Amino acid sequence: MSRFTSHMALALDQARAAADRGEVPVGAVVVSPDGRVAAAAGNRTRELSDPTAHAEILAIREACRLAGSERLPGHDLWVTLEPCPMCAAAISAARIGRLYYGASDVRMGGVEHGARVFDHPQCHHRPQVYDGLGADQARALLRGFFQGRR
Amino acid sequence: MSRFTSHMALALDQARAAADRGEVPVGAVVVSPDGRVAAAAGNRTRELSDPTAHAEILAIREACRLAGSERLPGHDLWVTLEPCPMCAAAISAARIGRLYYGASDVRMGGVEHGARVFDHPQCHHRPQVYDGLGADQARALLRGFFQGRR
Repeated sequence: MSRFTSHMALALDQARAAADRGEVPVGAVVVSPDGRVAAAAGNRTRELSDPTAHAEILAIREACRLAGSERLPGHDLWVTLEPCPMCAAAISAARIGRLYYGASDVRMGGVEHGARVFDHPQCHHRPQVYDGLGADQARALLRGFFQGRR
Repeated sequence: MSRFTSHMALALDQARAAADRGEVPVGAVVVSPDGRVAAAAGNRTRELSDPTAHAEILAIREACRLAGSERLPGHDLWVTLEPCPMCAAAISAARIGRLYYGASDVRMGGVEHGARVFDHPQCHHRPQVYDGLGADQARALLRGFFQGRR
């Protein structure tokens, strides 16, 4: 398994663990410039009673806390689903270098859909964006989760 | 002083306190449906090494924690500056009923500028938005802060 594949595999593991906790199955991993996993998280909005506790936000906050900085230049973020506008703007604020995401999110996404947060002059840092990695597994997790709740 | 004026005055107090801490002077207040102040906060991104620690996010997280819920239906949010896309999306996710903000933010705003987070089908809850309240004071605080840092 390549390093890249393993980062998305870890994000998918976090998504699965979120589903097991009754949370929307999305997982995220922050990788430092030297290739180490700096932080990994899954959604915890229900558990924490926190609408901002998306996987990306929790992983970024943890990596920033460990780095002692509100910025993570040269870091990458891997996430199983297209970030929403909140997470996209946080990714920009944290100066994440590269964003890798799995499934597109027509309903809530804010990168290639809707608000398209990175595509405005008000966005002062745009990461490089790579999509579609592990998308089938990410979609299957989400589908299973929402079907199970009906 | 009317109740409405006093809520923005409290948000401005929080912005002033943020400036005193060396943070960008923005303040926010969450008001519960019965008119009580549920939470008040100013920016703490530097202090907390957290790029998501904007005034709005901190106030929403605290109000949610106290309510034991990731949603705050019927609550209002008062903030001295037009929210960025991250905060606008968090306001939507928290189901805030009414958003009152002071100064417009051409450079970073995500409500009436750039991403216009509430104006897309991917936004599933749009608060009522009222702008311009206390805008002069909010702008003067920001201007003084950034001039002092040059």
